This record gives sequence, structure tokens and C-alpha cells, in this order.
Amino acid sequence: MTRPLRLAPDRLFPPEQRTRDIARALYDGVKGLPIISPHGHTDPAWFALNEPFPDPAQLLIAPDHYVFRMLYSQGVRLEDLGIPTRDGTPVETDPRKIWMRFAERYHLFRGTPSRLWLDWVFAEIFGLDVQLTADTAGHYFDTIDAALRTDAFRPRALFERFDIEVIATTESPIDELLHHKIIQDSGWGGRVITTYRPDPVMDPEHEDFAENVARFGELAGEDISTLDGYLRAHENRRAYFRAHGATATDHGHRNATTCTLDRADLETLYAKALLGRCSLDEADIFRGAMLVEMARMSIEDGMVLQLHPGVVRNYNDMVHSRFGRDKGADIPAPTDYVTALKPLLDAHGNDARLSVILFTLDEDSYSRELAPLAGHYPALKLGPPWWFNDSPEGMRRFRERVTETAGFYNTVGFNDDTRAFLSIPARHDVARRMDCAWLAQLVADHRLEDDEAHELARALAYDLAKAAYKL
Amino acid sequence: MTRPLRLAPDRLFPPEQRTRDIARALYDGVKGLPIISPHGHTDPAWFALNEPFPDPAQLLIAPDHYVFRMLYSQGVRLEDLGIPTRDGTPVETDPRKIWMRFAERYHLFRGTPSRLWLDWVFAEIFGLDVQLTADTAGHYFDTIDAALRTDAFRPRALFERFDIEVIATTESPIDELLHHKIIQDSGWGGRVITTYRPDPVMDPEHEDFAENVARFGELAGEDISTLDGYLRAHENRRAYFRAHGATATDHGHRNATTCTLDRADLETLYAKALLGRCSLDEADIFRGAMLVEMARMSIEDGMVLQLHPGVVRNYNDMVHSRFGRDKGADIPAPTDYVTALKPLLDAHGNDARLSVILFTLDEDSYSRELAPLAGHYPALKLGPPWWFNDSPEGMRRFRERVTETAGFYNTVGFNDDTRAFLSIPARHDVARRMDCAWLAQLVADHRLEDDEAHELARALAYDLAKAAYKL
Amino acid sequence: MTRPLRLAPDRLFPPEQRTRDIARALYDGVKGLPIISPHGHTDPAWFALNEPFPDPAQLLIAPDHYVFRMLYSQGVRLEDLGIPTRDGTPVETDPRKIWMRFAERYHLFRGTPSRLWLDWVFAEIFGLDVQLTADTAGHYFDTIDAALRTDAFRPRALFERFDIEVIATTESPIDELLHHKIIQDSGWGGRVITTYRPDPVMDPEHEDFAENVARFGELAGEDISTLDGYLRAHENRRAYFRAHGATATDHGHRNATTCTLDRADLETLYAKALLGRCSLDEADIFRGAMLVEMARMSIEDGMVLQLHPGVVRNYNDMVHSRFGRDKGADIPAPTDYVTALKPLLDAHGNDARLSVILFTLDEDSYSRELAPLAGHYPALKLGPPWWFNDSPEGMRRFRERVTETAGFYNTVGFNDDTRAFLSIPARHDVARRMDCAWLAQLVADHRLEDDEAHELARALAYDLAKAAYKL
Repeated sequence: MTRPLRLAPDRLFPPEQRTRDIARALYDGVKGLPIISPHGHTDPAWFALNEPFPDPAQLLIAPDHYVFRMLYSQGVRLEDLGIPTRDGTPVETDPRKIWMRFAERYHLFRGTPSRLWLDWVFAEIFGLDVQLTADTAGHYFDTIDAALRTDAFRPRALFERFDIEVIATTESPIDELLHHKIIQDSGWGGRVITTYRPDPVMDPEHEDFAENVARFGELAGEDISTLDGYLRAHENRRAYFRAHGATATDHGHRNATTCTLDRADLETLYAKALLGRCSLDEADIFRGAMLVEMARMSIEDGMVLQLHPGVVRNYNDMVHSRFGRDKGADIPAPTDYVTALKPLLDAHGNDARLSVILFTLDEDSYSRELAPLAGHYPALKLGPPWWFNDSPEGMRRFRERVTETAGFYNTVGFNDDTRAFLSIPARHDVARRMDCAWLAQLVADHRLEDDEAHELARALAYDLAKAAYKL
Repeated sequence: MTRPLRLAPDRLFPPEQRTRDIARALYDGVKGLPIISPHGHTDPAWFALNEPFPDPAQLLIAPDHYVFRMLYSQGVRLEDLGIPTRDGTPVETDPRKIWMRFAERYHLFRGTPSRLWLDWVFAEIFGLDVQLTADTAGHYFDTIDAALRTDAFRPRALFERFDIEVIATTESPIDELLHHKIIQDSGWGGRVITTYRPDPVMDPEHEDFAENVARFGELAGEDISTLDGYLRAHENRRAYFRAHGATATDHGHRNATTCTLDRADLETLYAKALLGRCSLDEADIFRGAMLVEMARMSIEDGMVLQLHPGVVRNYNDMVHSRFGRDKGADIPAPTDYVTALKPLLDAHGNDARLSVILFTLDEDSYSRELAPLAGHYPALKLGPPWWFNDSPEGMRRFRERVTETAGFYNTVGFNDDTRAFLSIPARHDVARRMDCAWLAQLVADHRLEDDEAHELARALAYDLAKAAYKL
Repeated sequence: MTRPLRLAPDRLFPPEQRTRDIARALYDGVKGLPIISPHGHTDPAWFALNEPFPDPAQLLIAPDHYVFRMLYSQGVRLEDLGIPTRDGTPVETDPRKIWMRFAERYHLFRGTPSRLWLDWVFAEIFGLDVQLTADTAGHYFDTIDAALRTDAFRPRALFERFDIEVIATTESPIDELLHHKIIQDSGWGGRVITTYRPDPVMDPEHEDFAENVARFGELAGEDISTLDGYLRAHENRRAYFRAHGATATDHGHRNATTCTLDRADLETLYAKALLGRCSLDEADIFRGAMLVEMARMSIEDGMVLQLHPGVVRNYNDMVHSRFGRDKGADIPAPTDYVTALKPLLDAHGNDARLSVILFTLDEDSYSRELAPLAGHYPALKLGPPWWFNDSPEGMRRFRERVTETAGFYNTVGFNDDTRAFLSIPARHDVARRMDCAWLAQLVADHRLEDDEAHELARALAYDLAKAAYKL
């Protein structure tokens, strides 16, 4: 049996007719706006080199840990999905076989956002008009594979087709940004900017911390054996990143700890970090103290500071040791913001020149901590629902829980935060639909006037992201 | 452009027509009931002296930290809103300029309960019929300012117009209740009662603890140098408060800690507290032990005990030191009830003569801890959603999360908990609408019969508050 | 006044007409499926001996702590409800008087799931057609009492009438399973299986731990003075339970702690446990280490491992000492899964032969911890909302919070988890209705196709429970 694949025009809108009509009218006003993607993990090499994507499995399965974690949870081996091992043990290399394993289990994604994004990609990008099943898997593979060999499916063509006004990638301070330079020099009009993500040189627990810092010093031309040199290296590399378009930094810490230390104490801690002698607590304090330094630099150079705490990375030891990082085994944990952020907020929270964007995976903190903090401090704003929460229900809960205390203008629009390039328009579309659904509900129960809702729909889809990230 | 200001008759009702019709019918049965306001922070001087409110900014902006915290979060200086500094540094004194700064940014309040309350005040109290914007700000200022100079807008006239059956203010044990005495002696029929809030003489961390306790002893005519005298002083002042109408005590602790100590240990701790030598933990234990003493006294004198834990007060050091307490910088934190309340519950929780009303800002505790506790202990009831949660979405989540385990009759109706006098009817109206919306949903999906919903709507709007607070 | 008692055919369906129509159609496809009850606390003696239930109060009030905890919370003494005391102090013995006390306060259950279940029992099982009130209490008592004296209301007849395909009870390892043997030998076709619940011999804090373990060794024919013998006794008793139908174990720990210890350390800890010398932390570690042993045995013998953490049992000291365990005074507390489960998951989480089913009473962990864990680990699945959450709102929140990250196929259908036998069909009916309502919403906003929803409705009502519990 083949079922037709349809993207219903009213998907994700509230079922009640009057509210649905309001939502649809709001959405009609924003669906055509360009995409602002201020935070994500696409590969700048795609846009620099503009080479074709290799095959359907390499494009849609191997890089998307949302997809392969679900298959893994139901007993499919990662090797059988072509996920490369660290020690080079052979894994499946036939993309058609990988695709079949995925297609046979496509029902596992029912009710998940992956399903929404994939169906959108299949229908909108590849023009497929039947549902993916074991029966249609071959047809799917052939269709996608053939498309990928055409120029219309090269990265820059898709970038233009997706109407991306600007996209930010994320790089380490020891990245030389060669691909960004190539893009800048190419004369191509696509705006691809970088983001300064200093975790590899700020986290003493990083397995390569000392080597990373050494390389960092070389690139910056600073003597990193002293704290002064290390901090100047940050200032130097931040400027280098800004020259490649960066307007923001990003920090993916285990928790939201911030610290203010005496200079001497910070010097001592830095020396220990270089020697690999920090205890877990000291590493936490060092990261927290460096966040406050980053805030200080942000006031000076205007870069937005993004903080994404609360995930235990690489939680599954076996998967980590066999397949490496970012393999769908990062698990959220309870996250304190109130105690953790106080040193940073005492130091710089009242400074309206600073803009710190907070993310969370601990939803209870939305109404309890994050909205009250963002609804008070000039320097704080709330990032959109992130990771496991960048989904219809997650987006709904975010608005329900933060709007009343923080309003709309202490939020920053949508981030797709993805390395799945083809899903970007689908993700922004889901966010626009869910925000319009929320606004429609406020109009329907008379908490908001219709013209205000139209203005807000545009703000949430476009204006706020542009303003918050200074794009 | 001026948009009309309309209060839609169906605001906050569910959009689905059948459910909306049920909600409207329920609301029609309760919208005219008098207001029971058993917990709040209005100033008894208003009703004692019955002087006109000074000007629109002093009436609506300066005392409402919900309003100025939002403006502050978007970069407006508190000085520019006329918030007085502790050291007397001059601040804006022109109410018209303050009003304009507020009006220009009124869009920041979209989606917030402040907007609901303010629009209600503008339309219902002042008869304004256009939305507040920069363009209409002058018209607003003039209209409100003129009204405030008339007798119809003096506190007692508004009290009567609002149909307030009884309102409780909140006073410290070292307050002499002079304004309450004036009201009692005045022959005016308005019922304004006090509430016993002993934090300033029960919290060893209070900056003026020792002086407060000394004054407390004087007023009570007891020797507070011993624990016995101190406890007798409480009994004495509680009686004095009861003579001024009080039926309840209120306790705003950092957490829900309760303790039972040996008499000797409590005496030692009290002595340390008087000398200012309690550690943070000892201060916590002292407050917790005193809560158990308060419960014992409540069993004897019949006063209801209210506990509001879980807020870090005056979190923003700069704002606290420059502008003082209660400036919108109180931030909720995770709150444990299960471990914290056990000593109190072991001592008195099975005593049906005691009535402890619990509040929270940590919503996760609703279904996990508070509803199970209130659904079991004879001495426990649940207060309404409080502070950042006394909003449409907060009220909805409260009913969704507590009703199934605690039922309706272990809850206590609505508290407005406000110092914004003019918003009181608007707040009760929002609560009545949201409760009717919730009941309508239960009727619409056949969990409740229609006549039961009518009885419950009245209970939630009026009867339960009166019974729970013994009014 | 007597109000008719009606069970509306559309109860619990969404009020919006289109969505309601979808929900009704889905429900029509599953309402007649047999009941799979893989986890519960009915008494096997009922089905072994098939004796009549004694009287309405003994049937519906005394064994249901949901019912008497609510009455107790509103000031009714447990003695007056016939709850027996441990010391034999006399309590009410007249079932008619107990019934009247309950009936007079039936309004307290408005909005609770108890009300849903009781009304279903009254209407469907006993054919009552007026609401329960003080006025109709006598009629109710007489009707129910008369029915209980007929053969149609004996346990086996009801079991068949309820169309129960299989029901699991829960027994201690030191239970000889005599009633299960009687059922097996009786030739009756009802499938009643046991579940291995080793808490009494795995929890060093259990008041009778040492005696329990001694008896455990006797029954198993093993020398429990050594760890080896103790572990062999588990293997032996697990096999015995499997011979009486068991396919699962169940573990009701205070928290989700798991531990892997050196053999020598575990031996030392076991010796301390036998001597009653474990500290609270050591008891926790022992239980956690034994959970990992249970997982190992599960991989060998195929039994499903259920973990129900997060409740402070017998929280009310007075009620515990006077009336004993399971008297409605078990209170949930915050529960960590991420740190707690890591040792178990490191040891066995990637083994697809293992099936661990996790339950929670801490709803915030649904989207933050449980769905991300179950959406990754082959060995983990999520149990349904449990205890205070096995209610319409609890079921709704469960689906809203776990589906997007864990999908449907990492969940295991419904558990009634009850000792209230007559409520079992009502509970499954509520779960089927709420799941169909959730699926209908996904169809109505175009996240799911109609035929997929029908397949999922059947999976949630029947297939998943059967597969997950290997029934």
C-alpha cells in the first residue's frame, strides 16, 4: 500500500475554526519572510566548496543524531547505519542498505519533529508524493540520489532556494576559518558568518585542552603561558571572528556556573588548568570565571553571549568510546540558574550594553527562573526552546511559560541549531506556525488585538532574531 | 493611529463555542459576587485617611514592580521612572514625563497579565476608550489625573465601588496598627483587617532583627531577653492583631524548612539570634522552629498560617543597595516541601483544628508534592497561584496540576496579593474567568455535571476564601 | 434532589467537534479490545477462592487509599471509615455507617479520577442510575450489597465480564504463591500471573529484612549467609515465579540509584545488611547494586525489569504507626535519573536483550531526562503515568512531554497499577479515551495520518503492553 504524502496547508494550527482562521492569517503574513539563522551547526565547507551532497544516507541519516538515536533505541546497531567507528572497524557502506533500514522503521518517528522535518524535505525539496515505507524506499533512494547529482541541489543553490538572509555557523577559536574566507572571497552573495565557540580552550576538562590552548596562542600571536596572554588571545581571536562576520559567542557548559575571582586566584587556576591539574570543581570555577571575562569582553566588543547549559555530553560510555562525540547520547539534567548566574549578573547584569541569551533543557526553569530573570535584567534575554524542545509541544510550552513574565520582547525569535541543512526551512516553518498558533490563541481569547498579533508574528519570525543578534 | 480600547465580554474563555457558552454561563453566576481579598499588601493609610491618590505615575507605575521591572529589563533606568533612591540621589519627579516613558513602551506588556489589569483599569475605572500609545499618552495622563482629584476616586469610594466585602492588609508585629484603629473608629463600613506577618522579628537574617525584637517586646510588654518572653510576646501581639480583625498569619521564608527542637536548643539559638551570631543554617533552623511554634499558637488561637517560601529576595545587589527592597528583583528558586515540612506535619499535620495554607513559585511541586500533601493532611490546604503565576496561564496550570489529586475543596479560592489597589477587581475577574474556563472544560468533556460546576464556580470565587480564612 | 447518573459516550474527548469526531472513531476501534493488565496489586486469593466480596464499604472504601485519603484530608477520622488499627483499637464496623460518611462527602471527589472510576463502577457494574449523595446513599448500599451476594459478582465472573486477557499481581519472593497454584490447578481459564517484587529481601531498611532473607533462603533452598547463596536464591525464586507466569520484576525504591561494586565490596555490604548495620547511604548503595544484579539476571532469564522510584513511603508517622503501610501517605519527591541510572546503563543499557521500564512521579523528568534516555538506549522504555498521574491530565501531560523525543514505540501501553479490582475496566477506558484524544489532536493538526492513528490507538491500548511485557 502506498499512502499519498501531503503537507496539509493548515498543519500545526489549532483545530478550533475561528482560532485556526486567525492563525492562518497571521502565518500568511510571515511565511514568505527570509530566514534568519543566527545559531547553528552547518558546515561552512558546503558553501565554500559547493560540492554535491554524496548520497541520501550521508545527507539525511548519518549526520542527524535525532534520526539515528531513535533507530538505535529500537535495537538497530549504529554500525548498520553507517556511523563510522573511531578505531576504523568497518561499518555498513552501502547507502541503499542503510536507507532501507531507515525506511522499514519510519513508523518509529510518528509523533516526533523528525517526522515533520523529513516529510517536509521529501515533499518540498525532492517532490516526493508518496509516504516513505519499505515499499517506497527504493523509489525514494533513487529520486533523492538523482536529485543530488544536479546543480539545483548543490549547497549554494539550496541556500538561495531556502531564502536564507544570513546563517551563522559555529567554530572553535583554533579554527582558521578558511572556508569562511573562501566564501567571503568568492563573490557569492550568500551571507555565512561564524560564531566564536571557545569551549575547547575554556574547558579544562576537554581532552585536548593544553594542546588547544597552545595552538590558540600561536594563531593569536600571544604568549598563553600567562593569564594576561591567554585573555589577550581571546580578544584577538574574537576580533578575527568578527572580521569573518561573527556577532556572537556560544558556550556549551555542563551547568550555568559563573564566578568572579581575584586576579591572583584566576591566575593560579589557569596555571593548574594548563597542567591538567584542575579538580572537577576547579574546572567548573574556571569555566565560570571565564564566562564573566567573556561578558566583560562582550561589553567592549559588542558580541552577544549565548549560554547553553544543562547537558551531560557523551553520557553513554560505550557509544562515546566506539563512535565519538555527538552521537545522540547527550542527556539533559536539572539546571540551576539563580545561584549559578548571580556572580555574572552582579558584575554586568545591569549593563544594557551587554546581551546574554540563555537557553535551557530544564523546562521547569522557564517560569520559575528564566522568565523572572529575563523580565528584570537589562542584559538578559531568553533563547528559543532548544534541542529536545525545538518541537511543536516544546515551542508551545515555552510561550505558555515565559510570555506572561518576560513578555515577547525579552525573547529572541527562533534558532534552528541544526547540522541538518535541508531541515532548516522546515524548522523555521514549524516555529512560525507554532508562534502564530500561540498568538492566534491570545487573539481568540481577547488578550491581544489583531494588529498587535500581526506585528508580533513578524517580530518572532524575523525582527527579534535580527535585532538580538545584531545582524 | 488610535485603536479603540475594548474589554471583550468573552475574554479568557475557551475559543470552542460550546465550551465558551458553558464558561460564560458559569461566569454570569459569579461575576457579581463581592470581592473577598484575604491576602494582600494595600496600604491601610489609604482607607484610614481617604486622601486622593497623587498622580497617574505615583498611582500606577511607581508602586507596581511588575510594571517597572519590565521597563527596566528593556533598558529604562529606574531613576527615569521616579523610583526613589535610598541615598537621596535625585530621580525624575515629573509624573507626565514618567507616564510618557511608560506609554511609549506599552507594547512591551503584550501577552502579560499587567496588560490585562492595566487595560481593565483604564477602561473600567477611568472610562478610557482608546489604547494607550505614545500618541494617546497625554490624553491618558490628563484623564486619569483629573479623575484622581474627584471624590469618586478616593480610596473609600473605590473600595465601595469595587464591592470589596473584606480586604486583609499585611503588617509587621511592631506595627501599632494605627491606621486600622482609625478605620475601626471611623464608623465607615468598609472591612479592612490586618494580617500578622512576623518575619521582621522571626528572621535572624533581617538587617534590623535585634532592634525589631526589642521594639516587639516593648509593644507586647514582655521581656524578650528570654525565649519564654519572646514567645509570650508573639501570643500577645497575635491577640492584638486579632483585635484588629486578623484571622491569619503570613510567613515569607526563603524555603519551607520546619524544625522541632528541644526547648534548651531553641533557647540557645534564640540567644545567638539576638546577638546576631546565627550562621545561615542556624537562621534557617530558627525560622523553621518558630514556624512550628506558630502552628502551635494557631491551634490555640485559631489563626490560619500562610507559608510563602521559595524566593530569593533582593537578588540584584545593585538594585537593592541603590533602591531598596521590593523592586522587582525577587527571583524564585527550586523549593523542597516534602523533607522541609515533615517536622511541622509530624507535630501538627493531623490536627484538623490547624489550617496551613501553602503557596509555591516552583510549579513542578504542584502535582509532585503539594497536591499529594494537601490531598492527605487535614491541616494542609493549597493557596492559589502566586506572584509570577497569578496569571491566566499560571491559573490554568494550577488547576490542571492540583485538582486531580487534591480536589477543589483542599484549595482556598483566590488571593490578589497586590499593592496595586486599582488592579484588585481586574485580578479577581481574571481568576473568576479562568476558573470558569477550567470548570467549563470539565463539563464539556463530561467530567462534571452542569449544576456541580455552578456550585464550584461560586466556591472558587467566594465561598472557599471566606471559609478557609474564617472571614 | 436526585440527579441522574450518566456516563456520556463522548467523555474525555476534546470538545472541538472535528477533533472529537476523530477521537470517537479511534476509540470505537479499540474500546472492545481485551484488557492487558501487566502491573497491578489485585489479590490472587480473589481468583483462587472466588468468594463473594464482603460489603460495599469493604469493597470500595477500605482498600482504596485514593478514596480514604481524600476523606481524611477533609477531617474524617480513618477509624470512622473502618480502617483497622495495628494495635487492635476498635474502629467502625458498620459498613452502612461508613458508606454514609463517604456518600455525604462525595462532592469532595469532583474533578478527581476517583470520581470517574467510581461513577463508572456504579453505572456499569451495578446499574445505578442516580448520582451518589446523602439522599441516595441507602439505595446505593442496598443495591451494591445485594449484587455482591449473587454469583455474577464473584471475582471470576467479574474477571470474565471485564474481558481481562491477562492480569499480573505482585508478590514478595517469600510468598509461596499458593493462590496462583490453586488458580493454575483449578482448570479455570482466567490468566492470572505473578510479578517478582523483591523489595522485602533487597531493601536493608525494611523492618524485617533479616527474617525475610532467612525465609527467602529456606524457600530457595540456598545458604543466604553468603552473597553467592543470596544471589542464587534470587535466581531460584525468579525461576519459581516464572513457573507461575511471571514475566517481570518490579522494584519500588526510594530513588533511582544504581551501582556497580567490586564483588568484595558487595559481599561486605551484604554482610552489614544482614546484621542491620547499613547506614542510609549504604542501604541505598546495596539496593542500587542489587538492581544491576537484577538487570544481569534479566538478560539471562528474560524477565522485564520495572523501576518505580521517587516516593517517600509512609511519610505520615502517626498514620504509619497507628494504621500501617499503604494508607495514602506516600508522598513523591524530586527524582534524579541521569546520575542515578548511569552505572546500570553503562553495564547493560546497550544490550537490546534487556528491557527496563521506568516510571516516575516527578513529571519534570519526562521531557528532561526520561524521554531522552528512552529515545536513545535499546534497553530502556517508559512506563505509563503512575499513581497520582494515572489520571486524564496526567496522561495528557505524559504524551505531550514524551512523544516528541521518545516516540510511541519506546512506551509500553497502560498499567492500571491498582488494588481496586472493580475500577480496572474504568481505568483502561480512561487511558484509551485519553490516548485517542491525543492521537486525534495529532491528526487534526496534521502531524499524523488517519490510518497511522488507528494503528497507534490499537498499539497503545493493547499491542505495546503485550509486547513490552512478553505476554
